[in-house]
Amino acid sequence: MAEESSGSNRKVEVCFSPALFPVYFQDKNCVVVVIDVFRATSAICSAIDNGVKSILPVATVEEATIYKEKGFIVGAERQAEVVEGFDFGNSPITFKSGKYKGEEIVLTTTNGTKAIDLAKEAYKVVIGSFANLDAVCNYIEQEDKDVILFCAGWKDRFNLEDTLFAGAVVEKLVENLRFSNLADSALASLNLYNTAKNDLYGFLNESSHRKRLSRLNLEEDIIYCLTLNQSNNVPILKDGKIVKS
Amino acid sequence: MAEESSGSNRKVEVCFSPALFPVYFQDKNCVVVVIDVFRATSAICSAIDNGVKSILPVATVEEATIYKEKGFIVGAERQAEVVEGFDFGNSPITFKSGKYKGEEIVLTTTNGTKAIDLAKEAYKVVIGSFANLDAVCNYIEQEDKDVILFCAGWKDRFNLEDTLFAGAVVEKLVENLRFSNLADSALASLNLYNTAKNDLYGFLNESSHRKRLSRLNLEEDIIYCLTLNQSNNVPILKDGKIVKS
Repeated sequence: MAEESSGSNRKVEVCFSPALFPVYFQDKNCVVVVIDVFRATSAICSAIDNGVKSILPVATVEEATIYKEKGFIVGAERQAEVVEGFDFGNSPITFKSGKYKGEEIVLTTTNGTKAIDLAKEAYKVVIGSFANLDAVCNYIEQEDKDVILFCAGWKDRFNLEDTLFAGAVVEKLVENLRFSNLADSALASLNLYNTAKNDLYGFLNESSHRKRLSRLNLEEDIIYCLTLNQSNNVPILKDGKIVKS
Repeated sequence: MAEESSGSNRKVEVCFSPALFPVYFQDKNCVVVVIDVFRATSAICSAIDNGVKSILPVATVEEATIYKEKGFIVGAERQAEVVEGFDFGNSPITFKSGKYKGEEIVLTTTNGTKAIDLAKEAYKVVIGSFANLDAVCNYIEQEDKDVILFCAGWKDRFNLEDTLFAGAVVEKLVENLRFSNLADSALASLNLYNTAKNDLYGFLNESSHRKRLSRLNLEEDIIYCLTLNQSNNVPILKDGKIVKS
């Protein structure tokens, strides 16, 4: 009941860049939602949705190469493109055919896997994307912890699309009255989401990464990444691998 | 003429925290506007407006103490309060009586003077506040450089009031068509400012630092800090001291 839970003073903050994460991650006893809308966390959700058994995130191309040489299925993305010699990059469309069903794969991306690595010592690390927005919010609400919504950004810079997703999460958490302690970063994200939510696609027209992807003819990816609630799955980090919760 | 200047591709970015500054400050040949609305940069504008000759910003209370012992007039603020033994803190009201007219003063604050120190190697360092919004925008437009709007934040965290001021600057720069290269951080700040500008005071009601100042009975300061265009002066950093440009 709302009345019972309204006394909760759980804190929600948004961290806009990996370079800021140490500032917000003062207490490890929290839930961290890693957000890289374009496209790592959207791709991870798609992978889990399409039957991939686990994803081992690695921070560098060098580590990814070692796994590739050992015979693993390995995805690697840098500068929004597939790194030569790897099986795929960070497109969520890759997994739709079910080609990698049942497989244990390895993945490195420009921003997303770096963020996952920074957050790994948190009580729980959750993978968030518009594709599983409601599922992520329900998962967070059930854990009685403070929350950091961790935007992977672009090379340590603030980006719009990750902030909008953070705002969407804040909106849900506030609706359910379980969070009354909103940091300025959460208020700003919520405000931006309220402005953008009726036309995410249009709002992001001018954003830097949207332009970057459009130049690469990745419109199908963009549409996937901005379509809400395609999945009920919540990928989480467990023993260093991302699996279905 | 707008037609002549519309081809300009000067870049404007907003840096939301001192911890992010190295990410944005890749090229020193730029104008950095340091922003600490509550209250360091508002106080500096008030000081210059009320005849203070120069302000030497120092990063630590220890440095400030050395100047105090040498007989200088020294302000020091930590946790939004005057540090014991110093002449004043970071209230803009301090200077209104003209008591410090003609003086060379020293100042250390929790966030603002730290930001000034980080930016000191830029081509120009400008002190921005709502009190001198239009004057700062005019100054920036006359320099043909990229711009970093540098929010001092609160202990390396994002804050709303500095972001709103950054958005107000972006709005003016875009109106004048001299800047066509807006980073995501600038788009987000502009959007927030557009939502808030008709009632800055109300919009900031829930912000963390506004609450902090209200608890300390600093409403007069808050009103000063949120009143636009009280001054035509642009304080800049010159040979380590802040002076009128």
